[in-house]
Amino acid sequence: MSFDAKFARSFTEDKIAFVQRMGLKAEILERGHVRLRAPLEGNSNHIGTMYAGALFTLAEIPGGSLFLTSFDFHQFYPIIKDMKLDFLKPATTDISCELTMTDEEIERIQAIANDTGKAEFILNTELTDTNGAVVARSKGTYQLRKTGR
Amino acid sequence: MSFDAKFARSFTEDKIAFVQRMGLKAEILERGHVRLRAPLEGNSNHIGTMYAGALFTLAEIPGGSLFLTSFDFHQFYPIIKDMKLDFLKPATTDISCELTMTDEEIERIQAIANDTGKAEFILNTELTDTNGAVVARSKGTYQLRKTGR
Repeated sequence: MSFDAKFARSFTEDKIAFVQRMGLKAEILERGHVRLRAPLEGNSNHIGTMYAGALFTLAEIPGGSLFLTSFDFHQFYPIIKDMKLDFLKPATTDISCELTMTDEEIERIQAIANDTGKAEFILNTELTDTNGAVVARSKGTYQLRKTGR
Repeated sequence: MSFDAKFARSFTEDKIAFVQRMGLKAEILERGHVRLRAPLEGNSNHIGTMYAGALFTLAEIPGGSLFLTSFDFHQFYPIIKDMKLDFLKPATTDISCELTMTDEEIERIQAIANDTGKAEFILNTELTDTNGAVVARSKGTYQLRKTGR
Protein backbone atom coordinates (compact mmCIF):
# COMPACT_ATOMS: atom_id res chain seq x y z
CA MET A 1 0.00 0.00 0.00
CA SER A 2 1.27 3.45 -0.84
CA PHE A 3 0.28 6.55 1.10
CA ASP A 4 -0.21 10.22 0.35
CA ALA A 5 3.03 11.78 1.64
CA LYS A 6 1.79 15.33 1.15
CA PHE A 7 -1.37 14.62 3.16
CA ALA A 8 0.61 12.91 5.94
CA ARG A 9 2.93 15.92 6.17
CA SER A 10 0.06 18.38 6.12
CA PHE A 11 -1.73 16.44 8.89
CA THR A 12 1.42 16.24 11.00
CA GLU A 13 2.54 19.85 10.69
CA ASP A 14 -0.43 22.06 9.80
CA LYS A 15 -3.82 20.38 10.16
CA ILE A 16 -4.18 20.96 13.91
CA ALA A 17 -3.65 24.65 14.81
CA PHE A 18 -2.45 23.71 18.32
CA VAL A 19 0.35 21.63 16.77
CA GLN A 20 1.13 24.08 13.98
CA ARG A 21 1.69 26.83 16.57
CA MET A 22 4.47 24.83 18.25
CA GLY A 23 6.39 24.43 14.98
CA LEU A 24 6.43 20.62 15.00
CA LYS A 25 8.08 19.24 11.85
CA ALA A 26 8.10 15.80 10.23
CA GLU A 27 11.62 14.57 9.48
CA ILE A 28 10.70 11.03 8.38
CA LEU A 29 7.32 9.91 7.08
CA GLU A 30 7.52 6.35 5.78
CA ARG A 31 5.40 3.24 6.06
CA GLY A 32 6.10 1.91 9.56
CA HIS A 33 8.50 4.72 10.43
CA VAL A 34 8.01 8.35 11.42
CA ARG A 35 10.26 10.87 13.13
CA LEU A 36 9.09 14.28 14.30
CA ARG A 37 10.96 17.19 15.84
CA ALA A 38 9.85 20.08 18.05
CA PRO A 39 11.91 23.25 18.50
CA LEU A 40 12.79 24.38 22.02
CA GLU A 41 12.28 27.97 20.89
CA GLY A 42 8.69 29.00 21.53
CA ASN A 43 7.99 25.85 23.57
CA SER A 44 10.00 26.45 26.73
CA ASN A 45 8.57 26.71 30.24
CA HIS A 46 9.34 29.15 33.06
CA ILE A 47 12.78 27.57 33.64
CA GLY A 48 13.80 27.42 29.96
CA THR A 49 13.32 23.70 29.31
CA MET A 50 10.68 22.29 26.96
CA TYR A 51 7.24 22.54 28.51
CA ALA A 52 5.55 19.22 29.43
CA GLY A 53 2.55 19.92 27.17
CA ALA A 54 4.87 20.34 24.18
CA LEU A 55 6.56 17.01 25.01
CA PHE A 56 3.15 15.34 25.29
CA THR A 57 2.12 16.71 21.87
CA LEU A 58 5.40 15.61 20.29
CA ALA A 59 4.72 12.10 21.65
CA GLU A 60 1.05 12.02 20.67
CA ILE A 61 1.10 13.23 17.05
CA PRO A 62 3.37 10.42 15.71
CA GLY A 63 0.52 7.95 16.32
CA GLY A 64 -1.58 9.86 13.79
CA SER A 65 1.36 10.25 11.40
CA LEU A 66 2.13 6.53 11.55
CA PHE A 67 -1.54 5.75 10.93
CA LEU A 68 -1.51 7.87 7.76
CA THR A 69 1.73 6.40 6.40
CA SER A 70 0.98 2.78 7.30
CA PHE A 71 -2.73 1.98 7.57
CA ASP A 72 -5.57 2.01 5.05
CA PHE A 73 -7.21 5.31 6.01
CA HIS A 74 -10.16 4.69 3.69
CA GLN A 75 -11.18 1.66 5.75
CA PHE A 76 -9.99 2.55 9.25
CA TYR A 77 -9.52 5.44 11.69
CA PRO A 78 -7.64 5.60 14.99
CA ILE A 79 -8.69 6.92 18.39
CA ILE A 80 -6.49 7.46 21.43
CA LYS A 81 -7.74 5.92 24.68
CA ASP A 82 -5.00 6.92 27.11
CA MET A 83 -1.44 8.15 27.21
CA LYS A 84 1.18 8.31 29.96
CA LEU A 85 4.34 10.36 29.88
CA ASP A 86 7.32 9.74 32.15
CA PHE A 87 9.51 12.83 32.44
CA LEU A 88 13.08 11.60 32.90
CA LYS A 89 15.28 14.67 32.58
CA PRO A 90 15.01 18.34 31.58
CA ALA A 91 14.63 18.89 27.82
CA THR A 92 17.18 21.59 27.06
CA THR A 93 17.42 21.29 23.24
CA ASP A 94 15.10 20.66 20.29
CA ILE A 95 13.48 17.26 20.89
CA SER A 96 12.79 14.36 18.50
CA CYS A 97 10.31 11.51 18.67
CA GLU A 98 10.57 8.39 16.51
CA LEU A 99 8.05 5.60 16.06
CA THR A 100 8.37 2.34 14.15
CA MET A 101 6.03 -0.55 13.42
CA THR A 102 6.74 -3.70 11.43
CA ASP A 103 4.69 -4.70 8.38
CA GLU A 104 3.56 -7.78 10.29
CA GLU A 105 2.22 -5.68 13.17
CA ILE A 106 0.42 -3.30 10.79
CA GLU A 107 -1.24 -6.20 9.00
CA ARG A 108 -2.09 -7.97 12.28
CA ILE A 109 -3.85 -4.87 13.69
CA GLN A 110 -5.73 -4.19 10.44
CA ALA A 111 -6.85 -7.82 10.21
CA ILE A 112 -8.33 -7.73 13.73
CA ALA A 113 -10.09 -4.40 13.07
CA ASN A 114 -11.39 -5.75 9.77
CA ASP A 115 -12.79 -8.88 11.43
CA THR A 116 -14.16 -7.42 14.68
CA GLY A 117 -14.62 -3.72 13.93
CA LYS A 118 -11.82 -2.59 16.24
CA ALA A 119 -8.29 -3.45 17.38
CA GLU A 120 -6.44 -2.08 20.39
CA PHE A 121 -2.71 -1.45 20.18
CA ILE A 122 0.05 0.18 22.23
CA LEU A 123 2.59 2.71 20.97
CA ASN A 124 5.70 3.38 23.03
CA THR A 125 7.96 6.32 22.20
CA GLU A 126 11.17 7.83 23.46
CA LEU A 127 11.75 11.56 23.27
CA THR A 128 15.41 12.37 22.71
CA ASP A 129 17.46 15.54 22.79
CA THR A 130 20.08 16.47 20.18
CA ASN A 131 22.73 14.63 22.23
CA GLY A 132 20.70 11.41 22.04
CA ALA A 133 19.66 11.48 25.69
CA VAL A 134 16.14 10.24 26.45
CA VAL A 135 14.26 13.07 28.18
CA ALA A 136 10.83 11.40 28.32
CA ARG A 137 9.02 8.18 27.46
CA SER A 138 5.41 7.76 26.44
CA LYS A 139 3.01 4.83 26.35
CA GLY A 140 -0.24 5.34 24.46
CA THR A 141 -3.20 3.01 24.05
CA TYR A 142 -4.89 3.40 20.69
CA GLN A 143 -7.79 1.72 18.98
CA LEU A 144 -8.08 1.18 15.24
CA ARG A 145 -11.71 1.22 14.20
CA LYS A 146 -13.32 0.16 10.96
CA THR A 147 -15.08 3.00 9.17
CA GLY A 148 -18.88 2.81 9.22
CA ARG A 149 -19.14 0.22 12.01
CA MET B 1 0.08 31.87 54.42
CA SER B 2 -1.09 34.33 51.81
CA PHE B 3 -0.08 34.14 48.16
CA ASP B 4 0.55 36.58 45.36
CA ALA B 5 -2.67 36.29 43.30
CA LYS B 6 -1.34 38.43 40.48
CA PHE B 7 1.77 36.24 40.15
CA ALA B 8 -0.30 33.04 40.26
CA ARG B 9 -2.55 34.36 37.48
CA SER B 10 0.39 35.54 35.40
CA PHE B 11 2.10 32.14 35.76
CA THR B 12 -1.10 30.27 34.85
CA GLU B 13 -2.11 32.34 31.82
CA ASP B 14 0.93 34.12 30.38
CA LYS B 15 4.27 32.88 31.73
CA ILE B 16 4.59 29.88 29.39
CA ALA B 17 4.13 30.90 25.72
CA PHE B 18 2.86 27.42 24.82
CA VAL B 19 0.03 27.84 27.35
CA GLN B 20 -0.64 31.49 26.56
CA ARG B 21 -1.17 30.59 22.88
CA MET B 22 -4.02 28.25 23.75
CA GLY B 23 -5.90 30.93 25.68
CA LEU B 24 -6.04 29.06 28.99
CA LYS B 25 -7.68 31.17 31.71
CA ALA B 26 -7.77 30.91 35.50
CA GLU B 27 -11.32 31.07 36.89
CA ILE B 28 -10.48 30.27 40.51
CA LEU B 29 -7.11 30.76 42.21
CA GLU B 30 -7.40 30.16 45.94
CA ARG B 31 -5.36 28.33 48.55
CA GLY B 32 -6.16 24.65 47.99
CA HIS B 33 -8.50 25.33 45.08
CA VAL B 34 -7.90 26.25 41.43
CA ARG B 35 -10.13 26.03 38.37
CA LEU B 36 -8.88 26.66 34.82
CA ARG B 37 -10.69 26.78 31.50
CA ALA B 38 -9.53 26.23 27.92
CA PRO B 39 -11.51 27.44 24.90
CA LEU B 40 -12.42 24.95 22.18
CA GLU B 41 -11.79 27.68 19.60
CA GLY B 42 -8.17 27.53 18.46
CA ASN B 43 -7.61 24.18 20.21
CA SER B 44 -9.65 21.78 18.09
CA ASN B 45 -8.28 18.81 16.19
CA HIS B 46 -9.02 17.55 12.67
CA ILE B 47 -12.50 16.38 13.70
CA GLY B 48 -13.48 19.55 15.60
CA THR B 49 -13.11 18.29 19.18
CA MET B 50 -10.45 19.56 21.61
CA TYR B 51 -7.02 18.23 20.69
CA ALA B 52 -5.45 15.76 23.16
CA GLY B 53 -2.39 17.99 23.72
CA ALA B 54 -4.64 20.87 24.78
CA LEU B 55 -6.45 18.57 27.23
CA PHE B 56 -3.10 17.43 28.62
CA THR B 57 -1.96 21.03 29.11
CA LEU B 58 -5.25 21.96 30.78
CA ALA B 59 -4.70 19.04 33.20
CA GLU B 60 -1.02 19.76 33.80
CA ILE B 61 -0.97 23.49 34.52
CA PRO B 62 -3.29 23.36 37.59
CA GLY B 63 -0.53 21.56 39.50
CA GLY B 64 1.66 24.63 39.10
CA SER B 65 -1.20 27.00 39.88
CA LEU B 66 -2.09 25.06 43.05
CA PHE B 67 1.57 25.12 44.09
CA LEU B 68 1.66 28.91 43.79
CA THR B 69 -1.60 29.49 45.68
CA SER B 70 -0.97 26.90 48.40
CA PHE B 71 2.72 26.19 49.04
CA ASP B 72 5.60 28.29 50.29
CA PHE B 73 7.32 29.03 46.97
CA HIS B 74 10.27 30.68 48.70
CA GLN B 75 11.18 27.37 50.35
CA PHE B 76 9.96 24.76 47.84
CA TYR B 77 9.54 24.09 44.12
CA PRO B 78 7.58 21.33 42.33
CA ILE B 79 8.61 18.99 39.53
CA ILE B 80 6.37 16.67 37.53
CA LYS B 81 7.51 13.03 37.31
CA ASP B 82 4.77 11.48 35.21
CA MET B 83 1.24 12.09 34.03
CA LYS B 84 -1.41 9.86 32.52
CA LEU B 85 -4.52 11.01 30.70
CA ASP B 86 -7.55 8.81 30.08
CA PHE B 87 -9.64 10.13 27.22
CA LEU B 88 -13.26 9.23 27.99
CA LYS B 89 -15.37 11.07 25.43
CA PRO B 90 -14.98 13.74 22.73
CA ALA B 91 -14.51 17.27 24.10
CA THR B 92 -16.98 19.33 22.07
CA THR B 93 -17.16 22.52 24.19
CA ASP B 94 -14.82 24.71 26.23
CA ILE B 95 -13.29 22.49 28.93
CA SER B 96 -12.64 23.12 32.65
CA CYS B 97 -10.26 21.52 35.08
CA GLU B 98 -10.56 21.89 38.85
CA LEU B 99 -8.12 20.85 41.55
CA THR B 100 -8.51 20.94 45.32
CA MET B 101 -6.23 20.09 48.23
CA THR B 102 -6.99 20.29 51.96
CA ASP B 103 -4.92 22.41 54.36
CA GLU B 104 -3.90 19.19 56.13
CA GLU B 105 -2.57 17.69 52.91
CA ILE B 106 -0.66 20.88 52.01
CA GLU B 107 0.96 20.97 55.47
CA ARG B 108 1.71 17.23 55.41
CA ILE B 109 3.52 17.46 52.04
CA GLN B 110 5.47 20.57 53.07
CA ALA B 111 6.51 18.97 56.37
CA ILE B 112 7.93 15.90 54.59
CA ALA B 113 9.78 18.06 52.04
CA ASN B 114 11.10 20.23 54.84
CA ASP B 115 12.40 17.21 56.79
CA THR B 116 13.74 15.06 53.94
CA GLY B 117 14.33 17.51 51.07
CA LYS B 118 11.50 16.13 48.92
CA ALA B 119 7.94 14.80 49.06
CA GLU B 120 6.06 12.92 46.37
CA PHE B 121 2.36 13.50 45.85
CA ILE B 122 -0.39 12.58 43.39
CA LEU B 123 -2.82 14.99 41.76
CA ASN B 124 -5.95 13.62 40.10
CA THR B 125 -8.12 15.85 37.93
CA GLU B 126 -11.32 15.56 35.93
CA LEU B 127 -11.78 17.57 32.76
CA THR B 128 -15.40 18.55 32.27
CA ASP B 129 -17.36 20.09 29.41
CA THR B 130 -19.91 22.90 29.83
CA ASN B 131 -22.65 20.29 30.41
CA GLY B 132 -20.72 18.84 33.34
CA ALA B 133 -19.74 15.64 31.50
CA VAL B 134 -16.26 14.29 32.28
CA VAL B 135 -14.32 14.09 28.98
CA ALA B 136 -10.95 13.06 30.44
CA ARG B 137 -9.22 12.18 33.71
CA SER B 138 -5.59 12.77 34.64
CA LYS B 139 -3.29 11.34 37.27
CA GLY B 140 0.00 13.18 37.81
CA THR B 141 2.91 12.29 40.09
CA TYR B 142 4.68 15.36 41.43
CA GLN B 143 7.55 15.95 43.77
CA LEU B 144 7.89 18.94 46.07
CA ARG B 145 11.56 19.78 46.61
CA LYS B 146 13.18 22.03 49.13
CA THR B 147 15.06 24.93 47.57
CA GLY B 148 18.84 24.70 47.79
CA ARG B 149 18.99 20.97 48.63
